Amino acid sequence: MIDFTATYTDQYQLTMAQAYFLRGRKEEKAIFDYFFRKLPFGGGYAIFAGLETLLDVLEKFHFSKKDLAFLKVQGFDHQFIKYLENFRFTGKLHSAQEGDLVFPTRPVLQVESNIIEAQVIETLLLNLLNFQTLIATKASRMHLVAGDTKLVDFGLRRAQGPGGYYASRASVIGGFHATSNVRAGQDFNIPVSGTMAHSYVQSYDNEINAFRDFALSHPDNCVLLVDTYSTLKSGVPNAIKIGREMAQKGQQLKGIRLDSGDLAFLAHKSRKMLDKAGLDQVKIVASNQLDEKVIKSLLEEKAPIDIFGVGTQLVVGLPDAALDGVYKLAFAGGKPRLKLSETKNKITIPHEKQVYRIRNQDGSLIGADVITLRNEENVEGMHHIFELDKLMDFKGCKMEPLLHQVMENGKRVSPKKSLGEIATFSKQRLNELPASYKRFENPHIYKVGLSKKLKEEREILINQYKK
Amino acid sequence: MIDFTATYTDQYQLTMAQAYFLRGRKEEKAIFDYFFRKLPFGGGYAIFAGLETLLDVLEKFHFSKKDLAFLKVQGFDHQFIKYLENFRFTGKLHSAQEGDLVFPTRPVLQVESNIIEAQVIETLLLNLLNFQTLIATKASRMHLVAGDTKLVDFGLRRAQGPGGYYASRASVIGGFHATSNVRAGQDFNIPVSGTMAHSYVQSYDNEINAFRDFALSHPDNCVLLVDTYSTLKSGVPNAIKIGREMAQKGQQLKGIRLDSGDLAFLAHKSRKMLDKAGLDQVKIVASNQLDEKVIKSLLEEKAPIDIFGVGTQLVVGLPDAALDGVYKLAFAGGKPRLKLSETKNKITIPHEKQVYRIRNQDGSLIGADVITLRNEENVEGMHHIFELDKLMDFKGCKMEPLLHQVMENGKRVSPKKSLGEIATFSKQRLNELPASYKRFENPHIYKVGLSKKLKEEREILINQYKK
Repeated sequence: MIDFTATYTDQYQLTMAQAYFLRGRKEEKAIFDYFFRKLPFGGGYAIFAGLETLLDVLEKFHFSKKDLAFLKVQGFDHQFIKYLENFRFTGKLHSAQEGDLVFPTRPVLQVESNIIEAQVIETLLLNLLNFQTLIATKASRMHLVAGDTKLVDFGLRRAQGPGGYYASRASVIGGFHATSNVRAGQDFNIPVSGTMAHSYVQSYDNEINAFRDFALSHPDNCVLLVDTYSTLKSGVPNAIKIGREMAQKGQQLKGIRLDSGDLAFLAHKSRKMLDKAGLDQVKIVASNQLDEKVIKSLLEEKAPIDIFGVGTQLVVGLPDAALDGVYKLAFAGGKPRLKLSETKNKITIPHEKQVYRIRNQDGSLIGADVITLRNEENVEGMHHIFELDKLMDFKGCKMEPLLHQVMENGKRVSPKKSLGEIATFSKQRLNELPASYKRFENPHIYKVGLSKKLKEEREILINQYKK
Repeated sequence: MIDFTATYTDQYQLTMAQAYFLRGRKEEKAIFDYFFRKLPFGGGYAIFAGLETLLDVLEKFHFSKKDLAFLKVQGFDHQFIKYLENFRFTGKLHSAQEGDLVFPTRPVLQVESNIIEAQVIETLLLNLLNFQTLIATKASRMHLVAGDTKLVDFGLRRAQGPGGYYASRASVIGGFHATSNVRAGQDFNIPVSGTMAHSYVQSYDNEINAFRDFALSHPDNCVLLVDTYSTLKSGVPNAIKIGREMAQKGQQLKGIRLDSGDLAFLAHKSRKMLDKAGLDQVKIVASNQLDEKVIKSLLEEKAPIDIFGVGTQLVVGLPDAALDGVYKLAFAGGKPRLKLSETKNKITIPHEKQVYRIRNQDGSLIGADVITLRNEENVEGMHHIFELDKLMDFKGCKMEPLLHQVMENGKRVSPKKSLGEIATFSKQRLNELPASYKRFENPHIYKVGLSKKLKEEREILINQYKK
């Protein structure tokens, strides 16, 4: 849906690229790491999302004629612009699987290519991965509390413009079942859901006529919004009338929607009224300012709600609204690189790397990922990444490699994954994570560490840099 | 940049549209109001933005063949789908001017068309206007405190996916001068700005070589990022060396950028070092987690910063991240309509309307907008919208109409406004607003009210509905 040609970027990527080009460095190999520093929502994990979107865009990455004309006007060097005419992304990507659990400081993705390509894709990569990871994580928190109760994304109207398109995609990875967003449904094969707004009911002189007309127009998919006037005095009684009329014709009223008031109270009352009228099959949909905490509390009150419709909180990922993912240089000019910082946590990790998830012999998680050199062998323990004197031993444990090559020479190395596959995988991974990492208040901190060898290599480099 | 065909919507717009179509209501006139209920950021005003984007999209509004094929699979009625083949928006729009100050509850925009068209564009309209209004307002708060100090949007990497494109546009309306977002610059004619990242400096064995190479590649636009190793011990001294080398060639170092640490302290120190070296012309750019409060405090400390680069807080509009704009039915089926609510503030306002800004005879604002019937005359006072017994008299005042017709039969009635024109207009409007409405803490509340006649008409309708 979006036109992601190569000027979907920050200007400094291009000014740096020009400097590399003019100073004869265009063939030089570089490696960048994508990672984030802080888990969103004060939670204990994040769900990585956006990878397939990124791969789609990178496979077609180029500067359009219009882009190049604009760069000319901007004063870029004409030799450099000529070079950009046939510019493509021809690098390699090693990445976490989309939908996997990811944790701070460990590489989620590593880009390897010539330094110009690796630099020029930075903004695009961050823009796509940060946002979808944020929203998949938010959605997953709602999925955690909702269990088997269905979740539907209703957020497009409050989304950050076309950001809503990817919010709908990411929310499925996090466990949502459907969306109101027709375009997202169309492009990503997500079930699309939606019936009526208050304006529809208001456009009639009375509610029962509005309901009846709707049932006539949508006999197979009739969900009635019951709170335009009074949920219990008018909306539900009228819905029951329509439900009975439909039953007489051999049709079924599918549901009612509650969109204001005390949703737990109204759901209990409505359920009773519906059941008493023999309309046991009619589902109750609830919406209005929902988030994971409200959903949790509604279900704790055993509100008989079958489907939650979630808007703003989901699609803009409140309260964080952004993930702090960064893209840092790990190798260039034939050497490993790092960035020093007076804040120790901000010193980056050099080299080509791999990340392993540590498991007990029975496959269960021990709650640790270790970052190693890419081809390092015999890793049997790790140093905590911020407290390097803390050692963790995992001799005898299983190690699952987490970064997989997904791109070679700018093309996917395996077929595109469907959103359904990614969502299923994500649920498996989340199921594996012990509950203590998933609670909302002070979750257990998942450990991320460095292998002995990577720690040593990094320290040598830190000492060199400090000189 | 975005493909906004008509399935960029919530499914329920289409199910309602099908019901209107199948029940023979497709020619029926409807009027909807766009307004919001709560000012963002706890502030005293909002800046309306996104109108030109909306008009662009509405002029081309249609269902693509792919859209229609999808609706068929979704089970929509085949006569209805046939009707959608030639569907266009052919309505009227009356709107606030883009860039104008807007306040809660008063219509910002009124849509008048057949009920299907008016309903189908709802999601799109909310999606575009809510977000740009949020960001223009956020930008304007930064502009208020920054005064003549330049503001540059650096946010694309942390934006909500392609939402960043419109964030860059809206930030200019709120008072930003430039953006790092090349695509937005290209499409909206915004000055584009950007030089180097830490990765560029890190890719060299030492900082001075990185700086020198950059100066050779960008003699006319050389801004050096000075905090990769140590701002005061290495970055600024190296920048000074380069500044002198450039001066010897008749070139000028344009600036340095500070991106970490205590920006006030570092700016003061750097300024002194640069001035002492005769590099008075070198500008200081500061970035890193800025928002209106940080900018305010830096300037209160008289930090000699010439340009602020602002990212996340701007482009996702933290802490709100969404504006609660809604779209409510005011007229349908040949009658004015309203929505009742047990929350008095949520009862909507029926009829075709106009909004006037009240001014003293000298043109200064008195701090009130009044909502009237569209062609009402002799309005000399208003009832406060929530406290209807509160009366405000403005006999002898000037009244400026705020809603202007911008679209007739689905086409603009006047030429497209450039972003520059809109930004200039917005600054004029903000200048008119007394400071008490612009302060961040407990700002003065701008009054919105109903004319006597509109209040009476509404009460009649409320009483009818309550029966």
